[in-house]
Amino acid sequence: MEDYIVVALDAMGGDNAPKEIILGAVDALKENSKLKVLLVGKEDIIKQNLSELSYDKDRIEIINATEVIETAEHPVNAINHKKDSSIVVGMKTVRDGKADAFVSAGNSGAVLVGGQLIVGRMKGVKRAPFAPLIPTEKGVSLLLDSGANADCRPEHLLSFAKMGSIYMEYVIGRKNPTVSILSNGAEEGKGNALVKDTYPLLKDCADINFIGNIEARDITAGNSDVIVCDGFVGNAVLKMMEGTAKSLGHVMKKAFYKNLGTKLGALMVKNSLKESLSAFDASEYGGAPLLGLKGLVVKTHGSAKKTEVKNSLLQCITFKEQDISGKLVEKLSV
Amino acid sequence: MEDYIVVALDAMGGDNAPKEIILGAVDALKENSKLKVLLVGKEDIIKQNLSELSYDKDRIEIINATEVIETAEHPVNAINHKKDSSIVVGMKTVRDGKADAFVSAGNSGAVLVGGQLIVGRMKGVKRAPFAPLIPTEKGVSLLLDSGANADCRPEHLLSFAKMGSIYMEYVIGRKNPTVSILSNGAEEGKGNALVKDTYPLLKDCADINFIGNIEARDITAGNSDVIVCDGFVGNAVLKMMEGTAKSLGHVMKKAFYKNLGTKLGALMVKNSLKESLSAFDASEYGGAPLLGLKGLVVKTHGSAKKTEVKNSLLQCITFKEQDISGKLVEKLSV
Repeated sequence: MEDYIVVALDAMGGDNAPKEIILGAVDALKENSKLKVLLVGKEDIIKQNLSELSYDKDRIEIINATEVIETAEHPVNAINHKKDSSIVVGMKTVRDGKADAFVSAGNSGAVLVGGQLIVGRMKGVKRAPFAPLIPTEKGVSLLLDSGANADCRPEHLLSFAKMGSIYMEYVIGRKNPTVSILSNGAEEGKGNALVKDTYPLLKDCADINFIGNIEARDITAGNSDVIVCDGFVGNAVLKMMEGTAKSLGHVMKKAFYKNLGTKLGALMVKNSLKESLSAFDASEYGGAPLLGLKGLVVKTHGSAKKTEVKNSLLQCITFKEQDISGKLVEKLSV
Repeated sequence: MEDYIVVALDAMGGDNAPKEIILGAVDALKENSKLKVLLVGKEDIIKQNLSELSYDKDRIEIINATEVIETAEHPVNAINHKKDSSIVVGMKTVRDGKADAFVSAGNSGAVLVGGQLIVGRMKGVKRAPFAPLIPTEKGVSLLLDSGANADCRPEHLLSFAKMGSIYMEYVIGRKNPTVSILSNGAEEGKGNALVKDTYPLLKDCADINFIGNIEARDITAGNSDVIVCDGFVGNAVLKMMEGTAKSLGHVMKKAFYKNLGTKLGALMVKNSLKESLSAFDASEYGGAPLLGLKGLVVKTHGSAKKTEVKNSLLQCITFKEQDISGKLVEKLSV
């Protein structure tokens, strides 16, 4: 590996591939001179897209991959059969030490399965959680697992808590981050069987700053830096946040179009509102890392455009510079 | 029991008791002449509150109860030890056939425990779910269980689906309501162990119009009339909706206060926005019934004011008139 921080990028994955993906790569290169990007995908298509752009040619390399895993494909089948897909080829560059990280906006399930099967889990890690940053009134919090492991055991949630703490402290810079477990009541003793069994493990863990249960309604207020839950619940909560925000947006729009007065008023608040609401938009925060693998794998939204792709790439630099993998190995192998 | 539909109302429960509770009762009596309300609580306090109001004296009765179960009390202990509390006394009026329903804005856990222990479950019902109506872009949907039973088995979810269908069809008037199960993906085969085991039961059930999995982000769009899940997940999703809406409200407010222009604009959209957003406010839809008990028990929000109390009381009339209990017994004992 060169002195660069090398990130393999799935040029074919996501709704806006390859154009927005490649634009994001070029923007990221401009913003950070330590970055080198391996664009993985159909060589001719990538070349054609690049031909119209200006960028540092030493820091972009094309890795040809002739197949594409589509969004609707069954993840395990796809990973096993499409050996020359951009996801499989990209992940192999991480496994083989040619890249520090892999970023994809493609099939989530395939990224998850590929991460486990190709990149592989760190020693001491039994489940690798998806860990997206979610916007709150105070900034951001980390919600993990938000979808990788539908059924979890208490020891998995304990490891999510440790991983999340390290991520928030060293990637986001939140000193001694607070950790809570998502439950159906704030008091100790509330919860389903999993939460009740996990609570004492978190309470006794010296590596984290555990503050107890958190109810879902207190997440967006920003009451906890790290929120731990199983991947089924995390997925439901994350998507409920998205859905509610979207529906409220529609409701608001209708209210603004009600009559001439509201239309005028809406024009006057539009920019300010847009700015404030965009801070509350999950897609501004780059991708979700799949934590606990031997190399970094980041999944960005399927709808990612160049800004999110760029942010996801830049996130990989911090991850590498802060040696998050080293810190995770240290904490998790105890 | 008289020819009236008799509802026992916990006059002491909730943040705004007794004043708003009693106001809600008086308003409900004015709106429906078939209703009679038993106000359960401290007689002197209730009398004092009523003294300032005008109402049909034949249709309000005070049932004295000297104790109050506070919000923070442990539900099982409270139900077992405060035998003269408004919740215990009120539920006994239902058990003893003196009232058709009981409505409370008090301690949720105590209402749930009291419902099971005092009113008792119907034959064939193993778990009684909380079933609130939640606002969607198309109207309302029923989310059950939304918090009564944190850990559930597939047969419980099947019974929730049947109960929810009957409720939506006969109380809300949604013909042949669609039923879905909350999952982490729309396709069959997605889900945690509980969802995967429940799916075939729902698919094979002739009593419901099952349409498959639903992702949380599609709930508020109104894509399904009835959404089934365990009480832990339902609670998380419901509270995430509340929390997200609240945080977005704060974010919006800040945007409106940014400068003179935005303040003026905000004034112009204020009324229209308020009206539209209030349709998206869960508290407008009365309380959540605890389905599957031998009598109707309705839990309203702790923060309920007179309108929500009134709506909760009126809901009990439809429930009785449509003989929902009879219909539930019929479907669930099969």
